[in-house]
Amino acid sequence: MSLHVDDLLAGRSPFRAGTYRLLQYAVLLVGLAAMATMTMPALQPATRAWLEVCLWAALGFFAAELVAKCWPRTSDDGAPNYLFTGPGLIDALAVLPIPFALLAGVPADTAWLLASLWLLKLAAVVPGLSLLGRVIALEARPLGSVLVIFLIVLLLGSVALYVAERAAQAERFGSLPQSLWWAVTTLTTTGYGDAVPITFAGRLIAGIVMICGLGVFGLWTGILATGFAAEHRRRDFVRNWNLVRRVPFLRDLDPAAVIELTRMLRRIDLAERTVVVRRGRPGDCMYFIAAGEVEVQVEPQPVRLGAGAFFGEISLLEGGPRTATVVTTAPSTLLILEVSDFRAFTALHPDLAQAVEQEAASRAGAGQTTLATGTAGLADNRADK
Amino acid sequence: MSLHVDDLLAGRSPFRAGTYRLLQYAVLLVGLAAMATMTMPALQPATRAWLEVCLWAALGFFAAELVAKCWPRTSDDGAPNYLFTGPGLIDALAVLPIPFALLAGVPADTAWLLASLWLLKLAAVVPGLSLLGRVIALEARPLGSVLVIFLIVLLLGSVALYVAERAAQAERFGSLPQSLWWAVTTLTTTGYGDAVPITFAGRLIAGIVMICGLGVFGLWTGILATGFAAEHRRRDFVRNWNLVRRVPFLRDLDPAAVIELTRMLRRIDLAERTVVVRRGRPGDCMYFIAAGEVEVQVEPQPVRLGAGAFFGEISLLEGGPRTATVVTTAPSTLLILEVSDFRAFTALHPDLAQAVEQEAASRAGAGQTTLATGTAGLADNRADK
Amino acid sequence: MSLHVDDLLAGRSPFRAGTYRLLQYAVLLVGLAAMATMTMPALQPATRAWLEVCLWAALGFFAAELVAKCWPRTSDDGAPNYLFTGPGLIDALAVLPIPFALLAGVPADTAWLLASLWLLKLAAVVPGLSLLGRVIALEARPLGSVLVIFLIVLLLGSVALYVAERAAQAERFGSLPQSLWWAVTTLTTTGYGDAVPITFAGRLIAGIVMICGLGVFGLWTGILATGFAAEHRRRDFVRNWNLVRRVPFLRDLDPAAVIELTRMLRRIDLAERTVVVRRGRPGDCMYFIAAGEVEVQVEPQPVRLGAGAFFGEISLLEGGPRTATVVTTAPSTLLILEVSDFRAFTALHPDLAQAVEQEAASRAGAGQTTLATGTAGLADNRADK
Amino acid sequence: MSLHVDDLLAGRSPFRAGTYRLLQYAVLLVGLAAMATMTMPALQPATRAWLEVCLWAALGFFAAELVAKCWPRTSDDGAPNYLFTGPGLIDALAVLPIPFALLAGVPADTAWLLASLWLLKLAAVVPGLSLLGRVIALEARPLGSVLVIFLIVLLLGSVALYVAERAAQAERFGSLPQSLWWAVTTLTTTGYGDAVPITFAGRLIAGIVMICGLGVFGLWTGILATGFAAEHRRRDFVRNWNLVRRVPFLRDLDPAAVIELTRMLRRIDLAERTVVVRRGRPGDCMYFIAAGEVEVQVEPQPVRLGAGAFFGEISLLEGGPRTATVVTTAPSTLLILEVSDFRAFTALHPDLAQAVEQEAASRAGAGQTTLATGTAGLADNRADK
Repeated sequence: MSLHVDDLLAGRSPFRAGTYRLLQYAVLLVGLAAMATMTMPALQPATRAWLEVCLWAALGFFAAELVAKCWPRTSDDGAPNYLFTGPGLIDALAVLPIPFALLAGVPADTAWLLASLWLLKLAAVVPGLSLLGRVIALEARPLGSVLVIFLIVLLLGSVALYVAERAAQAERFGSLPQSLWWAVTTLTTTGYGDAVPITFAGRLIAGIVMICGLGVFGLWTGILATGFAAEHRRRDFVRNWNLVRRVPFLRDLDPAAVIELTRMLRRIDLAERTVVVRRGRPGDCMYFIAAGEVEVQVEPQPVRLGAGAFFGEISLLEGGPRTATVVTTAPSTLLILEVSDFRAFTALHPDLAQAVEQEAASRAGAGQTTLATGTAGLADNRADK
Repeated sequence: MSLHVDDLLAGRSPFRAGTYRLLQYAVLLVGLAAMATMTMPALQPATRAWLEVCLWAALGFFAAELVAKCWPRTSDDGAPNYLFTGPGLIDALAVLPIPFALLAGVPADTAWLLASLWLLKLAAVVPGLSLLGRVIALEARPLGSVLVIFLIVLLLGSVALYVAERAAQAERFGSLPQSLWWAVTTLTTTGYGDAVPITFAGRLIAGIVMICGLGVFGLWTGILATGFAAEHRRRDFVRNWNLVRRVPFLRDLDPAAVIELTRMLRRIDLAERTVVVRRGRPGDCMYFIAAGEVEVQVEPQPVRLGAGAFFGEISLLEGGPRTATVVTTAPSTLLILEVSDFRAFTALHPDLAQAVEQEAASRAGAGQTTLATGTAGLADNRADK
Repeated sequence: MSLHVDDLLAGRSPFRAGTYRLLQYAVLLVGLAAMATMTMPALQPATRAWLEVCLWAALGFFAAELVAKCWPRTSDDGAPNYLFTGPGLIDALAVLPIPFALLAGVPADTAWLLASLWLLKLAAVVPGLSLLGRVIALEARPLGSVLVIFLIVLLLGSVALYVAERAAQAERFGSLPQSLWWAVTTLTTTGYGDAVPITFAGRLIAGIVMICGLGVFGLWTGILATGFAAEHRRRDFVRNWNLVRRVPFLRDLDPAAVIELTRMLRRIDLAERTVVVRRGRPGDCMYFIAAGEVEVQVEPQPVRLGAGAFFGEISLLEGGPRTATVVTTAPSTLLILEVSDFRAFTALHPDLAQAVEQEAASRAGAGQTTLATGTAGLADNRADK
Repeated sequence: MSLHVDDLLAGRSPFRAGTYRLLQYAVLLVGLAAMATMTMPALQPATRAWLEVCLWAALGFFAAELVAKCWPRTSDDGAPNYLFTGPGLIDALAVLPIPFALLAGVPADTAWLLASLWLLKLAAVVPGLSLLGRVIALEARPLGSVLVIFLIVLLLGSVALYVAERAAQAERFGSLPQSLWWAVTTLTTTGYGDAVPITFAGRLIAGIVMICGLGVFGLWTGILATGFAAEHRRRDFVRNWNLVRRVPFLRDLDPAAVIELTRMLRRIDLAERTVVVRRGRPGDCMYFIAAGEVEVQVEPQPVRLGAGAFFGEISLLEGGPRTATVVTTAPSTLLILEVSDFRAFTALHPDLAQAVEQEAASRAGAGQTTLATGTAGLADNRADK
């Protein structure tokens, strides 16, 4: 059997990476659903048996994946063993604790709860967690400051409320830890309502704590959100920069202009056979193809554009609706330049506008009138929307 | 009867678009109110019959609208049939499901709940939904990251709380799905209070989940809010750009200055007979008329200014209160230039200030002293506020 | 009796404006407290009588104020009557409705609730409300979009939950209006907990509604907060610009630099006898006096600086702690230039740094070594903190 | 016994500052935990005695610390006594009130609650509180505006709800203060659910109050968060500026470039033996050493770099993975320049790129090929990630 695990994992053959990824998600979903159902009271023994089969199957799948990924390769490129990288650790964490817990005599019900660690596998897929970690590392000081403010408000608020309410509601505010619980639910504006002040002084204190809560909350969320946004922008800049360098046309602008343009461009990843622009719709951006291929559906026969080409500029230059429908023929990465940015950019750097116009004209001159985004004839019935 | 549906829909004659729009809103409101009232228990049969009449009337209105809009036009301009555009789909969704559900034997009470889809018609009016869709498409990666973080915190938090509380509160935290419900209400800071931890460990975990909830919440709202704001700014830029090109005066500045100015200007749409500036009030902005007409109420007789003109510059140039009241005489679109932006802009680009001053002077020289925003005499009693 | 109401209101004599303002606040506070206490059940008749006296006294005070302000002045400057300005309207709203309600036969308990309108008088003092109105006017489109999204999520969510829960909890979700109430409390993350879904489908829907709620909430708050911040910045720019023009030293920089500086400066209003800088503390900003006077406490005798002067520059130029304590001797308005801005600014515009240094040197040369912020001797023992 | 308190406090000898700081935290934690436990009902007398011992010990520790810090020094440098500085006041507040309360006859249980003031000692450590104070001072006007809006919505909302609900729920909305309590919990979106409107009018009002609450909340948090972020940025600028001046290499750029660079650099404080970059990982930033020392782990023997040096530039210049692992050998402060900023900066200021390249080349020429971040040989097997 010639099925090669390495190829499988890299998504080259015989299945596509997308298929494998979907299989992973399906196993993850089934496994977690089985784990959650296991905890329901009064299960039929048969159902229970089936759930256990699901769980063992999912565990087996993840174990096989881990073994395949750790298997020593022939080309020793000096990279550390997979087990000791971040994703490897997460994969190991998904597989190993459960059998160990079962062997150690933990009841099956409790041991299988460790399957919740499987969800961490998602963290390796999305860039979110590493970004968040970075934001927390860089904004450690302001976040730490806010945490201290939070703790101070929490403790002073709960002491004050304890003093105010302990006589009136001994069963709810009879000790400081109980009052602290109230303060946490109130400061985070969760407000369960299981412990509520009833005296006048208590309610006054509670009102102040709530308003402080809004402030603390605002600081906390504001710092995280701005840090996260800044990190995403940085990461996008680097990615876009690498993509811009693949478009010959943009690469040759002067460096300051490239920087500015890199900040303006927005990347979009599209699957195969996705409609990018539709004929007759108003056009408010142009596209550069960083990777993949698109088909411009013009008469007499469609034209294909590959990486490095651009399309959609007619609507920008002349302000009309889209003159042709463009569809991706392969998974593609496009860079979008919005009309607002295009105008702002070309006002300061007339080169790009000229280059776009020349390119469009040269295409037309070479008998490739249909290349850009439509026929010359269709470009005429444009209307200012 | 010569009433033309096309004209009616386009708002040309015999009613104004505003009237038709108001009628739509009224039908929508009555329809939705009738639907909500239908679900009340113990209705009188007579009331019920009346409500059904309202509902059928509203449905008929929307059906007639849909038919009128889909009716084939003589001028086949290659545009797709209305039914297959976004608004067409929404209109069809408002009309078709209810009769189908009734035919399929769904009880009337339940079938009429589909009338809630009528509200989607509002989405075609405001730019919000398409903007939001675009923001979600462009920010899919960070939003996806946050969603994964949310899911991880949700699952780990609920497993931990399930372990901590299952013994103490079997009826509330007896299974993982119940614990998940608690985690959702807590992470979103909704905090119904129907399931509340009572053990020490459970409360500690709950506190951590709440604080994580604030973070996740902050990321989620931060990404959406900044993306939404950026999209709005882009869209406004394009709109303002198109308006600036209608003001000869601004169009002729150098391109970089036009870009900068386009970013500064803010558009305001005013109804007929709205007071734009009032005599004697402090003036902190000047206005360019992009469309419509205004009347400057000066002695001996009011002066009218049309599209392309500007007014309100005297307060900006000389720092006094408004010297005349200005009222719109038709629905108008004005571009506002704030004093802060005016000063910042003219410091860097003295042309605009010169041009404004020249224009004002030339008006004065041509005996049109009253044109700008008041008489020269009134301009003297200005006071620095 | 020569007490002049006009002078009193303008705060010139015989009391200071601050005193009059405090009196207003006190009357407001007493009035509102009396109104709140009036609604308490089981009041003693005597207490009740006293409260009524308070309320009538406060009403009388506000009525007297209104009459005094509306009283026709000798100098008719063409300004509209006070009654028809914004603050005048608010003042009238505070005084007139209560007697009319009492005359119309409304019970006293209910009529006095109109005293809550007195609080609107605060709105005339702080710039918040007019700013907020402006933000809402300018951001009407995005806010409207979000409102429509909110309404759509609200209605669809409550219909879905009504279908899911009406069988299980007929008393709580038995009609669409009840379900709408649940949706409002959930979408705003208030979460009273009086109506909580209990079925699996209901909880799933509720979870989705909560997460949508976070998004809608984020958009709403994001738009308001950014708009409010931008308006405040604009208003501050205009105020600072007017103040900068009073400092001869700053006014003479080239226009682009003045714009940039105006954006950097932050205004602070200080009462009399406030310590601005304290000797020995690290210094991270310098001050320009826009209005008022300060006293630099140096040996052998303190030096006074008036409007147009600056101080605190030694710490910025040489990086040491403050060399003298500076105290205001009159209510003063200072413009603060932070060290970060000072360095960024002087790197690009060396004129300011030179001018500051020259001024400092010329002061020193004229034997006024003590003017800047301390003696030359004290400036030596600085340490880099 | 030669143990010198001054040295101990300054962390010079015989323990390290870190150890002393940890001891402080431990005492704080134990003290606060003991205080919280003291309030639990039904404590054993023995437990109680032990808790009191803990509390007295913590109090003694803080008292000793206070005395040590206030002890007159030989070098009278004109600085004010420690007691009258901010941290001194906090230290005094931690120590003095408890014995005074006990002497004044306050029961021990209540007196020890004052131990919650110990937490304020944390405020002296993190920069948060002073920053927050500054933000509140600078943003006093907008915050005040929002507070007034909050108060107006609060009062009008609670009056309206009182009118709507007083008949239906006399026990919950029977007086205005009760209604105010409801309004506070609702406006802050806490939503305890102890007082919930049940009439139609009441619920309508409540819905409006909630939506207003979101707006007020958004303004409040938006102002605080943006102000806090701006202050942090300012403070970081000053700190980074001071660090940049220690790197000879950066100090010599032209002033405008230094300003720009100072804004881009991000500071990170690392403990001893922390891995900064790891061989084989993708590299997305370079590092300047502001203080401390690092070890570049290359063959044949590791190289040490001190303050003023830089490393990690090979990945930036040539785009490959890290060619060597770098570990700190002492507590170090590094300045991070991200690849996005590096590219943006060098496009506008080619000097830095040149200087970095020259420095790297000169190192290589001097036979120090291993200095930068790895051997020349390793730099070849880079791959574009």
